[in-house]
Amino acid sequence: MKKRIGKATMKFEEPVYIHSFATVVGPKEKAGPLGERFDYSFKDNLHEEASWEKAEQKLQQYAMEIALEKGEKSASGLDCYLGGDLLNQITASNFTARALGVPYLGLYGACSTLVESFVVSGCLIDGGFAEVTGVCTSSHHDTAERQLRYPTEMGVQRGMTCQWTVTGSGAYILAKHSSSKVAITRGIVGKIVDLGISDNMDMGTAMAPGAADTIITYLEDNHDFETLDYIVTGDLGYIGQDICRKILLNKGYDVKGKYLDCGALIYSRQQDTHGGASGCGCSATVLAAYFMPLLESGQAKKILFVGTGALLSPTTVQQGESIPCLAHGVLLERIKEGEKC
Amino acid sequence: MKKRIGKATMKFEEPVYIHSFATVVGPKEKAGPLGERFDYSFKDNLHEEASWEKAEQKLQQYAMEIALEKGEKSASGLDCYLGGDLLNQITASNFTARALGVPYLGLYGACSTLVESFVVSGCLIDGGFAEVTGVCTSSHHDTAERQLRYPTEMGVQRGMTCQWTVTGSGAYILAKHSSSKVAITRGIVGKIVDLGISDNMDMGTAMAPGAADTIITYLEDNHDFETLDYIVTGDLGYIGQDICRKILLNKGYDVKGKYLDCGALIYSRQQDTHGGASGCGCSATVLAAYFMPLLESGQAKKILFVGTGALLSPTTVQQGESIPCLAHGVLLERIKEGEKC
Repeated sequence: MKKRIGKATMKFEEPVYIHSFATVVGPKEKAGPLGERFDYSFKDNLHEEASWEKAEQKLQQYAMEIALEKGEKSASGLDCYLGGDLLNQITASNFTARALGVPYLGLYGACSTLVESFVVSGCLIDGGFAEVTGVCTSSHHDTAERQLRYPTEMGVQRGMTCQWTVTGSGAYILAKHSSSKVAITRGIVGKIVDLGISDNMDMGTAMAPGAADTIITYLEDNHDFETLDYIVTGDLGYIGQDICRKILLNKGYDVKGKYLDCGALIYSRQQDTHGGASGCGCSATVLAAYFMPLLESGQAKKILFVGTGALLSPTTVQQGESIPCLAHGVLLERIKEGEKC
Repeated sequence: MKKRIGKATMKFEEPVYIHSFATVVGPKEKAGPLGERFDYSFKDNLHEEASWEKAEQKLQQYAMEIALEKGEKSASGLDCYLGGDLLNQITASNFTARALGVPYLGLYGACSTLVESFVVSGCLIDGGFAEVTGVCTSSHHDTAERQLRYPTEMGVQRGMTCQWTVTGSGAYILAKHSSSKVAITRGIVGKIVDLGISDNMDMGTAMAPGAADTIITYLEDNHDFETLDYIVTGDLGYIGQDICRKILLNKGYDVKGKYLDCGALIYSRQQDTHGGASGCGCSATVLAAYFMPLLESGQAKKILFVGTGALLSPTTVQQGESIPCLAHGVLLERIKEGEKC
């Protein structure tokens, strides 16, 4: 295959530019260490909507609207909208696609959906099938709790391994032509790794081996460990990131100083999240607020960004199944217009 | 864009071959008019599994295993597995991906997921990012009823507009190189059409306008109405197909004699399904059992195959939302090895 490197890496021949991006978050995220960097925040988790689900859809819709505005594009200029979320049947994304009125590919990789959407968008744009796409994912603390664990109204005590689902959405406009300096240049599709963890209150432990698997496959394919400024995972949280770091070290990759997890960046330790952050909105907002500025300013030149997903449902948990996990990755590079990848 | 025609059609430069395919169904489907054409059937809707959900996962897994065997391929030879289903968080697909152990892209377009997976696979293969992919979707009558309406144990009376969700799965191996005579040559990604229908027992009426929209966009892009042998929709059922036919006629396309709906083909009128068939498994099994033989034998040369999806969830229904619908399409052609599209 002309656009493959090694076992699983897809190589885009031309940069797939991150033309513009935007974030919308809830009040807890606004109060965290990255608070000042988000484009817009909801005053509470409902933001005058009739339900949390409707509020989550608005997170996505606002994020897309701001990203389009910042990129001076209109929705009708999108060749495709790609995204997904944690809700049953990805309805936040479906209703956002309805609001945008453009061709829509719904994707589902749990919290890896942002990166999955980047990879598919990359194939559409570099393959010649699209020029401009919109990518967006979201999560919402209260919708996710009642979707995947217990409704928050029940007041069930959260275990110390639990992560706090981010209320937030990140939207990205990807384009074949742009004056942006940051682009997606490679993609990798992960495979399921399931080591038998079945505790839906300890997703970081469940997801870490899948994240490490994708990172190792990428590194074996590309041999560029030394030139990567950062390796970033989506939402392993405090516990999962330690496990991931250890697996990588066992494989000979000492990531000290270059490995970060979005789930450990969005909240401070004082915000009492227990295991850190999680959710589709975690990697989507932290990439925009923390890592994009590093790439745009030139402080970082190459980042391997890995979305991590736990593919459970309430039904599979109730039926005693373990949690299949996977991680997709993209290489984000600071790049000059016209430069080849 | 070099691989776009008109407003929304993606043109594959080389045929994306349907290398092999297989179907697994439940007993009601086996008893229908296409019964003899399916590769394998379950003796009942559980097939000795502990739950309907686990049985649905087995439908997919068996279908993939038979498709791989018929195509003389091994799972490890797949560059990517793509698919989805109607279950909360597409778990039948997630667990099948776990069993296959290959890179996995989860997709969700409700009953349009098969065609969505074809389109994305087409972009991966024609774009140079993959050579062989596995595509599979499934649905199961009992899992879908408890997922989207009422658990069947409740014995709720089904309305006369209700369609019967197919218990079945269709798996397809797509390849850049194959001795197969049938290939996907074009794809079209649909946009959401929502005319305000909110009755989750009348999906055909909800989905028909979206199906017609995609068909009309395709026809306006490609101007090949006269040379199409068939225009096929996925699961509009008896009611939806009449509405779709009427919308097309109003737009000047008299599809008499060339329009068929998979939801009206898999069961006989005597099987008491009310509105016909529906589900991801409907288009996936009927394409394999009814339309692929027509293309393979040369009785048909060009078929526009349109997957139709209703993107509702129990939550959106309970919250009074209408049903956003969309349809994706692929052009299936009988083609000779080496021929350009």
